[in-house]
Amino acid sequence: MPENLIDDGERLRRLRIAYLPTGPRLQSDVFDIVEEDLPALADRQVLVRVSHFSVDAGSRASLDTQSGYVFKLQPGDSPVGSASIGQIIASRHPDFSVGAHATTVVAPWHSHLLLSPDDEQGVRCIRPDLPLSAYPGILGTTGFTSYAGVFGPFHLDPGETFVVSAAAGAVGTAAGQFARMAGARVVGIAGGREKCDYLVNELGFDAAVDYKADLRSGLDAACPDGIDYYFENVGGDVQKAVFDRLNVLARVAICGQMAQYSGQGEPGGPNLMPLVLKRISLRGFLSLPDYPGLIPRFEAEVPQWLRDGKIKDPVTITDGLENAWEAINNLVDGRNIGKQLIRSA
Amino acid sequence: MPENLIDDGERLRRLRIAYLPTGPRLQSDVFDIVEEDLPALADRQVLVRVSHFSVDAGSRASLDTQSGYVFKLQPGDSPVGSASIGQIIASRHPDFSVGAHATTVVAPWHSHLLLSPDDEQGVRCIRPDLPLSAYPGILGTTGFTSYAGVFGPFHLDPGETFVVSAAAGAVGTAAGQFARMAGARVVGIAGGREKCDYLVNELGFDAAVDYKADLRSGLDAACPDGIDYYFENVGGDVQKAVFDRLNVLARVAICGQMAQYSGQGEPGGPNLMPLVLKRISLRGFLSLPDYPGLIPRFEAEVPQWLRDGKIKDPVTITDGLENAWEAINNLVDGRNIGKQLIRSA
Repeated sequence: MPENLIDDGERLRRLRIAYLPTGPRLQSDVFDIVEEDLPALADRQVLVRVSHFSVDAGSRASLDTQSGYVFKLQPGDSPVGSASIGQIIASRHPDFSVGAHATTVVAPWHSHLLLSPDDEQGVRCIRPDLPLSAYPGILGTTGFTSYAGVFGPFHLDPGETFVVSAAAGAVGTAAGQFARMAGARVVGIAGGREKCDYLVNELGFDAAVDYKADLRSGLDAACPDGIDYYFENVGGDVQKAVFDRLNVLARVAICGQMAQYSGQGEPGGPNLMPLVLKRISLRGFLSLPDYPGLIPRFEAEVPQWLRDGKIKDPVTITDGLENAWEAINNLVDGRNIGKQLIRSA
Repeated sequence: MPENLIDDGERLRRLRIAYLPTGPRLQSDVFDIVEEDLPALADRQVLVRVSHFSVDAGSRASLDTQSGYVFKLQPGDSPVGSASIGQIIASRHPDFSVGAHATTVVAPWHSHLLLSPDDEQGVRCIRPDLPLSAYPGILGTTGFTSYAGVFGPFHLDPGETFVVSAAAGAVGTAAGQFARMAGARVVGIAGGREKCDYLVNELGFDAAVDYKADLRSGLDAACPDGIDYYFENVGGDVQKAVFDRLNVLARVAICGQMAQYSGQGEPGGPNLMPLVLKRISLRGFLSLPDYPGLIPRFEAEVPQWLRDGKIKDPVTITDGLENAWEAINNLVDGRNIGKQLIRSA
């Protein structure tokens, strides 16, 4: 075992916010990068060279003074993703060996992370037997959000119609596949024929609706028996169309409202009268705080499904921290399929 | 025991819809009355002379082609209330004696009801030891709706802040008192100083907010610790103001959207983003289908609370079936305090 894996002249690169953006799309100068020497390790610390950063709806929302999102960032701060994975290149912690891989739950977009595993929740060592890119996505917090949305707030019975919006995204692709594993009829709502074909042909969705082409008639055709369970991720017009088709005693799990993560203010929501008439339940949730009890099942089932080829882990990769603005724009424009990641140079 | 209590020349009066109204308020000619002979009783039937009819939000909504309400009525049909009470004036049923009182769950607005207790759900004989006017209200389906909204979908812990809208109405006055019995801090939202004073001074609410005067600042003052449980009955602007003040893990029970029962179409609802951030649960419900298991507790507790003077049963009475249009307008205009009833001549 080498003492460390640090390259000659290796330096730490910090991505920072240059200014808070106004429109939904980011310009190439919205972030800058500062370089500095690698930090010295204190006792029981490790230094991780990150290979993949997670890009999430929250990465954009945290730049937005209007969104009401959990994190608010300022110029000079570093953007934050939900998870990273990297290799330990130096260690003063007995349980974290040089050369091993470690994942985090939340991490700033720095090329290297100095971590104190004893203090920081969710830092852990893994022996990857699946592609590294799966760990910040379907095996990480994104995957757990999807899992919690399907199995957390409400029951989903085999044969019921499960609809997920933003279906081609990281949460949607995972949630739809999990609902399929639960025996539901799975319908995804996504933008464009290409994505819809992917959901049906590659991920085994029963049907997919292109909201840009035929949202309402498409939903009618894809959901002849109405909708029993809706995993809501977008808000806006898609939300309204789905609400109109919910069955009596339907359930709605909500973990994001993508349509309002982009500096466009707060649109109105759906009229709630149908909730009474159809006796519908809604639950807004944050996966880790609300459903910690699901974690062991998630960690047992999902890697096994992936190893067995029962589910897939689609990813869209942008190379280079300096292209982080483009990775976020992919999300804003809905150009990604599956998890959007930044791969470090 | 007399053979019957039918008066000489007593006739049945049927209130009928003359035309479907357009604006929210009803005109005096919206209903007409036809008289006919009292019907003959078949075996195991009873004839009830109604003393009090229930007037509900649904009584107006059922006239409204836009509301999406459960019942849709046409000209020639009779309006329907959620409950009636009256005296049995003729009986061919061994368990229902002449002179006793009977209540119904749902009943058309006819002066007399020919009932088949064996077939019709919810017809039952009572020995009133409380005012007759309480039976279609706080002791009937209205009261049970209130009870279900407080104790049905979610837990309400002592010391939590419970807010009810349309608080001076039948459901609101009952729900607020039930929540007070559960140990919550109770805040009502109503229109006008008079109603607000009534809620605090007569019904023991901890605070009341006049939405016509100071909805948002009033809520801030009345709910210094935010809102834990919201019993939602109105929609619109009040709904939005309350949603802005919901606490993390708040619960929202919804059983009516009064603001849209009056031919004004469907307004938008609240933005659902806060549901995610605050991990809020919503449940639309219909009391009897969803919470039949609560009925025994309701029937044990509520009459006893009323006998003991721990709760009150406010009512607003309009005399005469021919004035039914005015009774409905009371509801539309929010002129009633407590249960709105029509007392038969």
